[in-house]
Amino acid sequence: MAGSKFAYVRNFELPDPLLPEAFMVLRIDGHAFHRLSEEHNFVKPNDERALQLMDHAARDVMNEFKDIILAFGESDEYSFLFRRSASLYNRREAKILTTITSLFTSSYVFNWSKYLSDTPLKYCPSFDGRIVLYPTATVVRDYLSWRQADTHINNLYNTVFWALVLKGGQTTTEAHATLRGTVSSQKHEMLYSRFGINYNELPARFRKGSVLVREEVSDTTEARSGPETDKAAASDPGEPVPTSGKKAQKKKPRVRTTVELYHCDIIGDEFWDCRQNLLADS
Amino acid sequence: MAGSKFAYVRNFELPDPLLPEAFMVLRIDGHAFHRLSEEHNFVKPNDERALQLMDHAARDVMNEFKDIILAFGESDEYSFLFRRSASLYNRREAKILTTITSLFTSSYVFNWSKYLSDTPLKYCPSFDGRIVLYPTATVVRDYLSWRQADTHINNLYNTVFWALVLKGGQTTTEAHATLRGTVSSQKHEMLYSRFGINYNELPARFRKGSVLVREEVSDTTEARSGPETDKAAASDPGEPVPTSGKKAQKKKPRVRTTVELYHCDIIGDEFWDCRQNLLADS
Amino acid sequence: MAGSKFAYVRNFELPDPLLPEAFMVLRIDGHAFHRLSEEHNFVKPNDERALQLMDHAARDVMNEFKDIILAFGESDEYSFLFRRSASLYNRREAKILTTITSLFTSSYVFNWSKYLSDTPLKYCPSFDGRIVLYPTATVVRDYLSWRQADTHINNLYNTVFWALVLKGGQTTTEAHATLRGTVSSQKHEMLYSRFGINYNELPARFRKGSVLVREEVSDTTEARSGPETDKAAASDPGEPVPTSGKKAQKKKPRVRTTVELYHCDIIGDEFWDCRQNLLADS
Amino acid sequence: MAGSKFAYVRNFELPDPLLPEAFMVLRIDGHAFHRLSEEHNFVKPNDERALQLMDHAARDVMNEFKDIILAFGESDEYSFLFRRSASLYNRREAKILTTITSLFTSSYVFNWSKYLSDTPLKYCPSFDGRIVLYPTATVVRDYLSWRQADTHINNLYNTVFWALVLKGGQTTTEAHATLRGTVSSQKHEMLYSRFGINYNELPARFRKGSVLVREEVSDTTEARSGPETDKAAASDPGEPVPTSGKKAQKKKPRVRTTVELYHCDIIGDEFWDCRQNLLADS
Repeated sequence: MAGSKFAYVRNFELPDPLLPEAFMVLRIDGHAFHRLSEEHNFVKPNDERALQLMDHAARDVMNEFKDIILAFGESDEYSFLFRRSASLYNRREAKILTTITSLFTSSYVFNWSKYLSDTPLKYCPSFDGRIVLYPTATVVRDYLSWRQADTHINNLYNTVFWALVLKGGQTTTEAHATLRGTVSSQKHEMLYSRFGINYNELPARFRKGSVLVREEVSDTTEARSGPETDKAAASDPGEPVPTSGKKAQKKKPRVRTTVELYHCDIIGDEFWDCRQNLLADS
Repeated sequence: MAGSKFAYVRNFELPDPLLPEAFMVLRIDGHAFHRLSEEHNFVKPNDERALQLMDHAARDVMNEFKDIILAFGESDEYSFLFRRSASLYNRREAKILTTITSLFTSSYVFNWSKYLSDTPLKYCPSFDGRIVLYPTATVVRDYLSWRQADTHINNLYNTVFWALVLKGGQTTTEAHATLRGTVSSQKHEMLYSRFGINYNELPARFRKGSVLVREEVSDTTEARSGPETDKAAASDPGEPVPTSGKKAQKKKPRVRTTVELYHCDIIGDEFWDCRQNLLADS
Repeated sequence: MAGSKFAYVRNFELPDPLLPEAFMVLRIDGHAFHRLSEEHNFVKPNDERALQLMDHAARDVMNEFKDIILAFGESDEYSFLFRRSASLYNRREAKILTTITSLFTSSYVFNWSKYLSDTPLKYCPSFDGRIVLYPTATVVRDYLSWRQADTHINNLYNTVFWALVLKGGQTTTEAHATLRGTVSSQKHEMLYSRFGINYNELPARFRKGSVLVREEVSDTTEARSGPETDKAAASDPGEPVPTSGKKAQKKKPRVRTTVELYHCDIIGDEFWDCRQNLLADS
Repeated sequence: MAGSKFAYVRNFELPDPLLPEAFMVLRIDGHAFHRLSEEHNFVKPNDERALQLMDHAARDVMNEFKDIILAFGESDEYSFLFRRSASLYNRREAKILTTITSLFTSSYVFNWSKYLSDTPLKYCPSFDGRIVLYPTATVVRDYLSWRQADTHINNLYNTVFWALVLKGGQTTTEAHATLRGTVSSQKHEMLYSRFGINYNELPARFRKGSVLVREEVSDTTEARSGPETDKAAASDPGEPVPTSGKKAQKKKPRVRTTVELYHCDIIGDEFWDCRQNLLADS
């Protein structure tokens, strides 16, 4: 056959399986989103439409890959947590990493106009991704706490910063100078005394980020209860077909699941106490 | 600081540099493109619009990443060859792999309507990617020969297959049966005698695939000569800004380059003899 | 400097850190020990002197590397379990793997004449090694159970096999044929009825393998209690100086430890219930 | 079977093949050899017996592993270069790395008394090892040049240093101070004017290190010509049986090879011009 004398080059494709039974977290980050947000006039300090678009892309990923049990998003990043025993693509790292990063990107571009309908996309946004393994449930929780603490720190800073600029008339340089060295309580006070803003009353989405959780549904209750179940997205004909889900259903007694969106605390124990199965050993 | 006690989780992010001075090839493959082509009524056996869209996405990648010296595309896959001494992102594997796979995907979705204007995209297409290292120029050429031989084999098969189905009235099952065990010369003969098709006169794009090459331009000739230089794409405001190019220009005496598209043989020596710098040691 | 223009070659030495907080097991296997045992007339089915030599080499390794909490040996292999949070050599895989495999080999050759005093070593024995990561305590226990089950299976077979050959007058071919298809109970019966051997009364070392455990000692009891504490080895001037131990002592309130040798069951829970700290999260 | 329910733990043993067609260099380094040389009264600045012992261990490795084409040794380190297409152990990294580091260690301990006959080995010496891949012949030569330049720099320094201490009556602190900031020509001058030593007349072994090369022998000349062919070692009944050699002989027309020891320059072109096959593409 014509190609056979070249086929030896396949030997250079080395295996890259990820360690079994370690938790995988795949984190996606926007590439040069500072410029993207400038060029498309994102609202400061938070553009709810852009955040909802991120959530939509993340939900598409979770609908396609049933091994993902939780995702946490903030700003231009999203972290996907797989169940410990996930075996998709035989845990081949590049395959998992690129397929999911690609699907997320695709959904972001595909759905852009649904959320930023009056702002045509000017050029191609892109994301990078990485997979990190965590051997224990403790480290997984600390990872997620790290991201949510980061959300809080960044959002508090940005909220005061843009208040100083947009309402206080400071230049961006002046606003950075005003904030230099301030601690959290001083930023709260500054927001309240100068601008009448009670930080804790700002939308939870901005303060806590987005938490997508795969929840089990008993067949009688029929998934009615989700706080923000995005039914439209779930039945969107544009959604990828959840082929991996079909296989999963064969293995076990059928448990229907739904992906719910919350903007809640995941640093404390309460969230986890209510979902003990999430990080349980398989 | 609130987040600091969790920051230790960064220690789980392990380094993943690729071996220096080995050629990298990043290959992108469509995910479930059989279904995508069905659902969007791609022309059989080749949809020129869909192939042009692939070429467009590949060109966007090459405009952004100047370390890529050549790309080869066929069907729903594209291979990107980096110059031996490429040092982008300090050769971190996941960063390179995901950024480029994501940008390709983004461009594919973003530009879909330019090429398949009467066929709205129904859902999110996605791609997977992998990076393979090849230590020698010989193996790199054999890799590219392997892909182009594959193009030929698949295209010949598909051309006869769809002639049997679309013009010969066979079912797909019958067409596969007709072709079973036939060698290349028999397929040529079948095409010619039954359908009056001279395989060698079919478009080179279908028979040879797409070869994107970064060619140097002397400042006087001004890049006029390219066979299919896609000027529109090059000046498209939607193109990513080639930031890495700016850095590259600082390092060396300025050599302008342009990305040219060919549908030519890259298995024989002629192509390479004319471009001896391409695979030269750095 | 003369060497500086070549020093760039260090860039090809890529980092190889092992995932933090995963349990490491380093397993060493004899290279071509079938031939070694033939050439040096090891007693069949078990040569106690050769097993003691293996134990001695393993103890030397544990004296040098305080992060190893347990080791299990049988035949010509030894597995070393590190505590979860082990940070020796910054968890660089090749450094840990080779240093320990080399020290084990060195001790095996160095101490050969102490155990096989009438059998001069004829040539250089060697070992290979590998490090495997296990994310959970459950898998670590299953790994060790796998090795001890293997010890039992092999030893039962070999014990009957060599009884048939050495006492029953069978050729090795006949003995293999006699044993083909027999289950465990049949082998026990064969041993007892034909050769008067009660398998369960054979030395535990042969049936259970060797378990070396780092045990904590309260300063009053002074490490008197070990079942087979090899005092001679511990005070041998030829022992490597436990430099890593000195550092460890700085970090924590001083806890003296001693390495004890057992030939006990480690598949059931009893061993582990008595040593709950061993696999505890750090 | 008793062990089968635990056998899943083998899934945690991940593949580790090295990139094909890249040159492998395995470098072995003595662990804490400063102390070893002190405790065993090695002659300063070079102990020829200890260097010969290193050469012996390296030769044992090359006799066992026919894929090694060249080795370079200095002080307590040895680098082994494999032919580009080496396929031993299917290029599994840990297997190659540990087997060779172990055999080297074993030979070092086993043969100690042949070279340091009046200095009994007091404790177990050990080595670490690493494998580094180099994609091109150029980088391989630069690697070897780097090591030989290092040999020169260290040996010149040590020669003057120990002359100052042993013949010049300086303390080691004084000797380091005397040498601080001196360049090569000053060290040469100091050696000659104060101690009457012409550096270039010192033994080549000390100045150039040891180069072991696998040379082809025509059947008529019968390997008589080697400058230092260590016949004793080659016929030593304690040598490992070169099993891999037997396989190699089946594949190709029989070419006898012998391992020759030189202490010559390998930075310049002459050595390589005489041995053009050594780094040739396979």
